[in-house]
Amino acid sequence: MKQTVTRFVNALQDEFCSTLERVDGGAVFTEDNWRYAPGDGPGDGGGRSRVLTAGAVFEKAGVNVSSLRGDLSERLAARLEVTDRRFFATGISLVIHPESPLIPTVHMNLRYLQLLDPDDRVTRAWFGGGADLTPFYPDNEAAVSFHRAMKGACDAYASDAYTRFKKWCDEYFYLPHRGEARGIGGIFFDYLEDDPERTFDFVSAVGAAFNRVYEEIVSARKGRGWNESQRDWQLHRRGRYVEFNLIHDRGTLFGLETKGRTESILMSLPPLVRWTYAQRPSPGSPEAQLVELLREPRDWL
Amino acid sequence: MKQTVTRFVNALQDEFCSTLERVDGGAVFTEDNWRYAPGDGPGDGGGRSRVLTAGAVFEKAGVNVSSLRGDLSERLAARLEVTDRRFFATGISLVIHPESPLIPTVHMNLRYLQLLDPDDRVTRAWFGGGADLTPFYPDNEAAVSFHRAMKGACDAYASDAYTRFKKWCDEYFYLPHRGEARGIGGIFFDYLEDDPERTFDFVSAVGAAFNRVYEEIVSARKGRGWNESQRDWQLHRRGRYVEFNLIHDRGTLFGLETKGRTESILMSLPPLVRWTYAQRPSPGSPEAQLVELLREPRDWL
Repeated sequence: MKQTVTRFVNALQDEFCSTLERVDGGAVFTEDNWRYAPGDGPGDGGGRSRVLTAGAVFEKAGVNVSSLRGDLSERLAARLEVTDRRFFATGISLVIHPESPLIPTVHMNLRYLQLLDPDDRVTRAWFGGGADLTPFYPDNEAAVSFHRAMKGACDAYASDAYTRFKKWCDEYFYLPHRGEARGIGGIFFDYLEDDPERTFDFVSAVGAAFNRVYEEIVSARKGRGWNESQRDWQLHRRGRYVEFNLIHDRGTLFGLETKGRTESILMSLPPLVRWTYAQRPSPGSPEAQLVELLREPRDWL
Repeated sequence: MKQTVTRFVNALQDEFCSTLERVDGGAVFTEDNWRYAPGDGPGDGGGRSRVLTAGAVFEKAGVNVSSLRGDLSERLAARLEVTDRRFFATGISLVIHPESPLIPTVHMNLRYLQLLDPDDRVTRAWFGGGADLTPFYPDNEAAVSFHRAMKGACDAYASDAYTRFKKWCDEYFYLPHRGEARGIGGIFFDYLEDDPERTFDFVSAVGAAFNRVYEEIVSARKGRGWNESQRDWQLHRRGRYVEFNLIHDRGTLFGLETKGRTESILMSLPPLVRWTYAQRPSPGSPEAQLVELLREPRDWL
C-alpha cells in the first residue's frame, strides 16, 4: 500500500497540475524537488513542490507531494495512544488562490500514514484528507456542485460517509474568534483504518471528483468580469484564510513544529492579503450575505 | 495602584496618539469605546481602541487600552501556580505600520495584572510589557537610538535590567520556522512583582522613552523616497509579522482564546501583506543584509 499510495499522490499531482495549467491557459508550474538533510527536518524524506504564480486565472496555485519516515513526537504519540512512534507518511496537498474574486479558493489534501514497529513491520495504518471550498461571494451553484461531487465520492464508500465527513469538515474549518466558517465546507476525514483497499479507492475517488469539479467551477467563472471593490473584499476575506491556517490548521502547525519545509507548508498562504480594522460589509450587500452564509453549517444538497 | 495604572495607560494613549498625529501630519485617529456584554467575552470590562489609517506617513496605527475583571483559565492559573483565579488587568498596546519601507514598524505594550482573593483583596500583582522595532532595511542608527532609549529607561530601574530584558526580547520575538528574529528587538519583561512604586516608575519611563524615540526615528525618515521594489519587500516582510502574531504571540493567542475583542486584538496585523513561494532577496542586496541581521541577536550598543 505504501508504494501504491506514493505512486498515486505523484500521479495525482501531475494530473492536477496539467488540469490547472490547461484552465489557466497562461502560466505553468515550476517545480522544486527537495530532500531533508540528514538530522535536519522531521525525518528522512522529501517532496516535490509545484507552484504556479501570476497566471491568467490563478494568482497562486501550490500543489505539494511529500513522503517521510520519522518518529512521532511524544505528544502526538500520546494523543494517538500508540507505542510505536516510528512512522511513514505520504500525501498530497493543494491550495489554489484565483485572482478573480468570483472564483472560489480551494484546498485539498489526501494522506496515508503507517506506524512501524522496531522491525519495520506496519502495526497500524490509516488514510486522512479532505477538500473544502472558500468562495468570496455567495455562489449556490458552485457550492452545490462541489458538495455533490464530494458526496459522489463518499457514497461509493459508505452510505453515511458524506454526512459524517461533511459535518467533520464544518467543525474543523471554523474560526471561533470570527464566529465564521472558513468557507462553505466540503469533506474532512481522518484515521480511516479499516479495509485499506476500499479506502484507497475512496481516496482516489475524492481526488478524481475534486479535479473534475474544480475545473468545472473555474471554467464557468473565469470569463466573468469583476471590479476593484470586489477584489478588495477578496483580499480581506483572504485574511480569514491566513488566520485559520496559522492559528488552527493542524497540518500547518504540526509541519512547522516538527521542522518541516517552511516554504512548502506556507505555500498555502494567499499571495496578497489585507487587514482593515473593523472592516464590515454594508448590510444587505452580497458581501454581507456571504458572511451570513458562513455563520452556520448548511445542507447544500 | 489599580487606579494609578488605569489613569496612566489612558493618558499614555492620548500622548501617543497626539504624537503620531503630529508626525503623520495628515490623518487623525478614530476611536471605538467598547464594553463586553455580560456573559460574553473574557470578563467584565472594556476598552478604547484607536486607529489611524491611510495617513501621510502611517498606513495603519493602532493604539488600544483596555481594563478587565475576570477569571483566569485553569490552564493559565496552573502555569502561574496560583490558586486565586480572579484577576484585574489593565494595559496599553500599540502596533504601527508606516507606509514607507524605510520607516520601521514598531510594537509596544505595557500591562498590569492583579490576582484577587474571594474578598477582592489583592494577593499578587505584577507589571509586564515590552517594545520592539522591526525595520525592513538595515538601519544601524534607528536600532542604536531605539536600544539606547530602552536602556535609558531600564538603567534607572536596575543596573542589569536592560541586559536581561533585551535578552528576553530576543528570545521572545523569534520565528523558529524561519530561523529569524521578528526584528532588531528591544526589551521584553513580565512578572515584575517587587516594589510596585518603583516598577511603575520604570514602566512610565519605558512609555515616555518609546514615545520620544519613535517620533525621532519616524521624523528623520519620513521625507526619504522609496520605490516599488522596496515596498514589495516590505509587504513580504510583513508576512513574518503576521506569522509571529498568529502562531507565537502569547497576548494575541490568549486574547483570542479567552474571547477577547477580535478587532482590537487583530488590530496589530499589517494593512497589506504578501506571501510569495520561496521569495529570496539577491545575495549581497540590502534585503539580504537585513535577513542576515535577523539570524542572531546582536549587541546594538
